[in-house]
Amino acid sequence: MGSIPITLSSEKKKKPNQDQLEFGRTFTDHMFVMDYSNEKGWYNPRIMPYQSITLDPAAIVFHYGQTVFEGLKAYLTQDEKVHLFRPEKNMERLNRSNDRLCIPNIDEEFAIEAIKKLVHLEKDWIPSAPGTSLYIRPFVISTEAYIGVAPSKTYQFIVILSPVGAYYKEGINPVKIAVESKYVRAVPGGTGEAKTGGNYAASLKAQELVAGSGYAQVLWLDGVERKYVEEVGSMNVFFKINGEIVTPSLNGSILEGVTRNSVIKLLKHWGYTVNERKIAFEEIYNAHKDGQLEEAFGAGTAAVISPIGEFSWNEHKLVINNGETGEVSKKLYDTLTGIQYGTEQDPFDWIVEIND
Amino acid sequence: MGSIPITLSSEKKKKPNQDQLEFGRTFTDHMFVMDYSNEKGWYNPRIMPYQSITLDPAAIVFHYGQTVFEGLKAYLTQDEKVHLFRPEKNMERLNRSNDRLCIPNIDEEFAIEAIKKLVHLEKDWIPSAPGTSLYIRPFVISTEAYIGVAPSKTYQFIVILSPVGAYYKEGINPVKIAVESKYVRAVPGGTGEAKTGGNYAASLKAQELVAGSGYAQVLWLDGVERKYVEEVGSMNVFFKINGEIVTPSLNGSILEGVTRNSVIKLLKHWGYTVNERKIAFEEIYNAHKDGQLEEAFGAGTAAVISPIGEFSWNEHKLVINNGETGEVSKKLYDTLTGIQYGTEQDPFDWIVEIND
Ligand SMILES: Cc1ncc(COP(=O)(O)O)c(C=O)c1O
Ligand SMILES: Cc1ncc(COP(=O)(O)O)c(C=O)c1O
Repeated sequence: MGSIPITLSSEKKKKPNQDQLEFGRTFTDHMFVMDYSNEKGWYNPRIMPYQSITLDPAAIVFHYGQTVFEGLKAYLTQDEKVHLFRPEKNMERLNRSNDRLCIPNIDEEFAIEAIKKLVHLEKDWIPSAPGTSLYIRPFVISTEAYIGVAPSKTYQFIVILSPVGAYYKEGINPVKIAVESKYVRAVPGGTGEAKTGGNYAASLKAQELVAGSGYAQVLWLDGVERKYVEEVGSMNVFFKINGEIVTPSLNGSILEGVTRNSVIKLLKHWGYTVNERKIAFEEIYNAHKDGQLEEAFGAGTAAVISPIGEFSWNEHKLVINNGETGEVSKKLYDTLTGIQYGTEQDPFDWIVEIND
Repeated sequence: MGSIPITLSSEKKKKPNQDQLEFGRTFTDHMFVMDYSNEKGWYNPRIMPYQSITLDPAAIVFHYGQTVFEGLKAYLTQDEKVHLFRPEKNMERLNRSNDRLCIPNIDEEFAIEAIKKLVHLEKDWIPSAPGTSLYIRPFVISTEAYIGVAPSKTYQFIVILSPVGAYYKEGINPVKIAVESKYVRAVPGGTGEAKTGGNYAASLKAQELVAGSGYAQVLWLDGVERKYVEEVGSMNVFFKINGEIVTPSLNGSILEGVTRNSVIKLLKHWGYTVNERKIAFEEIYNAHKDGQLEEAFGAGTAAVISPIGEFSWNEHKLVINNGETGEVSKKLYDTLTGIQYGTEQDPFDWIVEIND
């Protein structure tokens, strides 16, 4: 882990109260930064005090959204070890996103080393209360001062850290989801499978419109036929129909979640049949009508598993499992968090420990 | 034009040589900035020295692409007047983009006043050589330091200016365009009709892939059926088929160009039939085969009118009008630039003059 110089911050921020942690508002004392130029490639990796970014107003990021990002977490175990969960998956996806956005690839192993070194330095920031963690946000911004529509010639890769509270304050809790029929998040041939700003910008409006009616997030349908289930806000989605698990296949417009991949692996390990395929929402509706829709849940880094207690679809309301958390959802949540916090066996070697 | 305080820059930059102007690389001495907060609304409008923007690394613009922008030009006439071309159209579109991106609206008249005041201050920067102009780039960035996916609570509206050279150095010149069949720019329900970063980020890859084979830009097809013509890079597109002009209708995924609107008005004024409708590229191919595709051209602020000399579509090459500029393209170019530079009559009152 050599070769990444550290400049320590002279003042340490006051750490927030562990039971008042809000997602994504507080950041630690340090950040990792690395620059890119066409001549030098990625250069000057460094850890430095958390500080503002200064850019020319013509920087491409302000105009043409040439950005990518990732999201993962560091977990503190009861015996004070620090765990990352499948960080190599995030870094692979970062480079797939980079490819789509014409951003030069980043050495994945080096990026993980950088994250480890930064998290290790900020170990005191990892909250210890149950369900809390340190959220890790790597991202790339295009910094060239040029307002022609073309890939930037310079970039910064930055990693910031934010202590986050338990997603479920009073135990895992089902959410209500509105099926979106007007707005579209992504379409094959677009940027849906990349983790890039524009996808999230596109999602704000639909989100805002349903929030008023008590829905936590929207379920996106495909942008071509407006029939097939894609994903939910920042989660992939699963259904248990008549004992079998189904989830939309990776079709080019869905983000390939690390949690999604882990859920599929665990379910198969437990002997479930998991089908990745096209799923019309009408099929979900019919399964529900026939009493065969046993569970529905979202899967993503932030919430781990988010049981879905109700869908609204046009004029229909589908209450699932009496609005309660299903058995499979619960077992997945317990197992995944158990692996992450080191209280459960890790049969697939998913944990990467950060050593002193 | 009161109420916008000006802080003058103490050092003036050296102005670039008029015949070496490149698009979007040089910026003037001053910029306009205005802030937004939920409590104050848009406040603190000011003109100040052109300078870097300093933002928290967690600013929403770096992560979720919540941005919009506009593009228009100031033209210097032979008698040293300064012209804007239909700026109210750009400001209307800015607010339509704002609506889609959950960004608070900006007072359109005030924004035009701000642009006028800034351009007036930078009058010496407007190049005078034929075909040159001062490009005006208004844009909004989301500045809140919060990495939850939600609309920002704070923004900056900024206007920067860049002197730009003649788009055609040796007279108006046809370009080669590749019809894109793999990548998609936008889809109804998405953000295609908004001028927001993500659309341009999504376009980089296709652009990069065709540039190597000598194509200037790609022609986007619709993202649903992958059949219908949408637009070209940063231009709307028109075809002259058997004496009649056709252009794709505004379907929710195409940007509504100010030039497009002006072209339609002029053509109708001249007695042409203009049909705004769905156009399958196959129809263009067939018209070409039958010798009825007389002209094709792009229309946008940067190039004004860009004749298309060749389309490549799968394995086909369609050479149009022997690769030469068509009559209608030429007449539109001459008339539009004539109105802009004040050498032609302005029958629709499109010019807004900036007075001392
Ligand atoms: C659009 C979208 N889908 C799915 C996910 C879930 O991915 P992961 O499990 O890697 O967090 C996320 C969050 O990262 C997301 O932003
Ligand atoms: C995607 C796109 N289409 C069309 C246009 C043409 O619009 P306008 O004529 O207003 O410049 C532009 C440029 O602004 C554009 O970016």
